[in-house]
Amino acid sequence: MLRRPQFEFWYEFSSTYSYLAAMRIEPLAEEAGVEIVWRPFLLGPVFKAQGWETSPFSVYPAKGRYMWRDMEREAVRFGLPFYRPNPFPQNGLLAARIALLGLDRGWTPVFTKAVYTAEFGEGRDISDTEVLSGILASLGRDPEEIITEAQSETNKTRLRRLNDEAQSRGIFGAPTFFAEDGEMFWGNDRLEQALDWAVTQAKRSEVPL
Amino acid sequence: MLRRPQFEFWYEFSSTYSYLAAMRIEPLAEEAGVEIVWRPFLLGPVFKAQGWETSPFSVYPAKGRYMWRDMEREAVRFGLPFYRPNPFPQNGLLAARIALLGLDRGWTPVFTKAVYTAEFGEGRDISDTEVLSGILASLGRDPEEIITEAQSETNKTRLRRLNDEAQSRGIFGAPTFFAEDGEMFWGNDRLEQALDWAVTQAKRSEVPL
Repeated sequence: MLRRPQFEFWYEFSSTYSYLAAMRIEPLAEEAGVEIVWRPFLLGPVFKAQGWETSPFSVYPAKGRYMWRDMEREAVRFGLPFYRPNPFPQNGLLAARIALLGLDRGWTPVFTKAVYTAEFGEGRDISDTEVLSGILASLGRDPEEIITEAQSETNKTRLRRLNDEAQSRGIFGAPTFFAEDGEMFWGNDRLEQALDWAVTQAKRSEVPL
Repeated sequence: MLRRPQFEFWYEFSSTYSYLAAMRIEPLAEEAGVEIVWRPFLLGPVFKAQGWETSPFSVYPAKGRYMWRDMEREAVRFGLPFYRPNPFPQNGLLAARIALLGLDRGWTPVFTKAVYTAEFGEGRDISDTEVLSGILASLGRDPEEIITEAQSETNKTRLRRLNDEAQSRGIFGAPTFFAEDGEMFWGNDRLEQALDWAVTQAKRSEVPL
């Protein structure tokens, strides 16, 4: 039996195209036979390093106007609901801290999809602790306990380290995917190609366990 | 018999992803049954309006590094050669003026593809008048006559007007495609979807001539 190759999925909760990728990735990864490594991170520090105080879609209005139209079309194409968040971008800091906490406990994928659905499928404010508490409760988790732990120094530091890693690995936007050989792909548009790459690369370096 | 719907293709000679679109568009448009309207324009003024003095791939190094890698992969995927131009971005002003001149004479498509092949397929400098003269001569045209006319005030003004139109229609990058109903698509990644849209939209508004 062969080990399933790992496939890193770096996403930011306020990112429109990360929403599309998050809602699509699981069946595609399953079909490709790769294991998704969920990597919630923050685009804020990444954008700041590029001189932007907010989303480039807000910094560059023509690009922003196009993105909203493109998202409408893409959501239809993938059969997903789409609300334009107000305000945009949403503050995804607490959601990212919570998602990070779920990694060792197995509920990050389901939490991530629930947050994206609340944000882009229902137009809810994901910076609102109540909204996140409701999601955690609906997943059968203790919201108060988890949110306290998410805000602990240990967990905050863990997210900062993940963000440092994002920047040192050349991430400049989201979603971003990495195959095991380090090959990087940016954007929901590249998800299928990234998975193809991950599978091909894994076959080349195949070592039976 | 039905009129073939028009499909606008706005491209800039220095643009890497415009190269991919230009080399791919004709068979796809033929298959879709649409007529390509070639629109050579300049990204320089568009980028200046967004506060950039050069290509965003030069302004943002992490994004630029990724783009070169992505272009290598995309060129392989489409079976196209790919050289990284030096310097980048190339100055495509004269090439755009010449391409514009060819619109009424029917040789813009073949000239456009020849310029892109020189630039990205052979690593030649397309700001060099000799290179462009060679291309025109190879197409059986009189280089001196055409280049003089391309530099005329009338033709320069025509290109400036096209650029004003680009900005007023919300173009912020290249390649950009428009269906007849004004629907805009940005990027080589959206070429197939844009053509689908153009065909579907044309069927909806079908009026036999």
